[in-house]
Amino acid sequence: MTGQRVRQIYSGRVVHLALHEIQLPDGSTAIRELIEHAGAAAVVALDEANHVLLVRQFRIGAHQHLYEIPAGILEAGEPPASCASRELQEEIGYFPGRLDALGGFYPTPGYTTEYIHLYLARDLSPAPLQQDHDEFIEVTRIPFGEALAMIERGEIVDSKTIIGLLRVARRLSL
Amino acid sequence: MTGQRVRQIYSGRVVHLALHEIQLPDGSTAIRELIEHAGAAAVVALDEANHVLLVRQFRIGAHQHLYEIPAGILEAGEPPASCASRELQEEIGYFPGRLDALGGFYPTPGYTTEYIHLYLARDLSPAPLQQDHDEFIEVTRIPFGEALAMIERGEIVDSKTIIGLLRVARRLSL
Repeated sequence: MTGQRVRQIYSGRVVHLALHEIQLPDGSTAIRELIEHAGAAAVVALDEANHVLLVRQFRIGAHQHLYEIPAGILEAGEPPASCASRELQEEIGYFPGRLDALGGFYPTPGYTTEYIHLYLARDLSPAPLQQDHDEFIEVTRIPFGEALAMIERGEIVDSKTIIGLLRVARRLSL
Repeated sequence: MTGQRVRQIYSGRVVHLALHEIQLPDGSTAIRELIEHAGAAAVVALDEANHVLLVRQFRIGAHQHLYEIPAGILEAGEPPASCASRELQEEIGYFPGRLDALGGFYPTPGYTTEYIHLYLARDLSPAPLQQDHDEFIEVTRIPFGEALAMIERGEIVDSKTIIGLLRVARRLSL
């Protein structure tokens, strides 16, 4: 089963929407709406005391401020690990001495191509980069166990943040 | 900070795209692309032997067949728990004697309103419902520990499936 683009609907800043025709296993065809997305990288950043660095910003899809791990969209040709490191410097002002890949995931594979590469960052040293002009981000430092409790209590509700924290909890037995 | 719809771009089967104007903390405004989505429910279904029931289907966003927990979009006015139960019957043919809410999450709050309600289903009894005509779904039954290993190996890459399995792993100490 493969898809073929039959119509471009919209091309914007983040969202590029097209209609694709797919062939179903019974030989019939169906139209699927598909958001074409450049992909992203996201980082669980831990300090020496196993506190995790989270950012808090308004998210229009949730219509509220959300706690999230630092993340950003891949620039053209940018390797995901470079993107992860750059976003960490832009959003929380640290460079990771150690960056371990945790694989990645599709947030909504039914209608977007977005794939988020996940990393664990440690050995942080101060090295700020300029933020994007329209980002207003508040940084918080939370004990790792408390961040896990925030998932249970429904206070952390962003997919990349939940997956990043739970993957790191298993990997480091936290 | 709030958003206001300034232009409707497209209204389709799953995806409804609009442009929203938001006011930033510094008083300036910015345009954000927003997918308006009805929301969904997804279910980690465990049998008596702690095998998890996964479905496998082609996903155009990932351009491959993915392993996923059963899930579906909320119908108008449908409570999420009813949707979870209905999708379980449609996709894997079981009714859950016990259904525990695990909260939920936003897969991509930066550009869609989609919120996925998660459930843990147990005490399963056979009770099939007719599948949607254009769904071609293969059901597999996998030991819970093996499903967790598939996340580590990058063989399960769907957000709701990863979050559902890792939340249940912590809750049931599996």
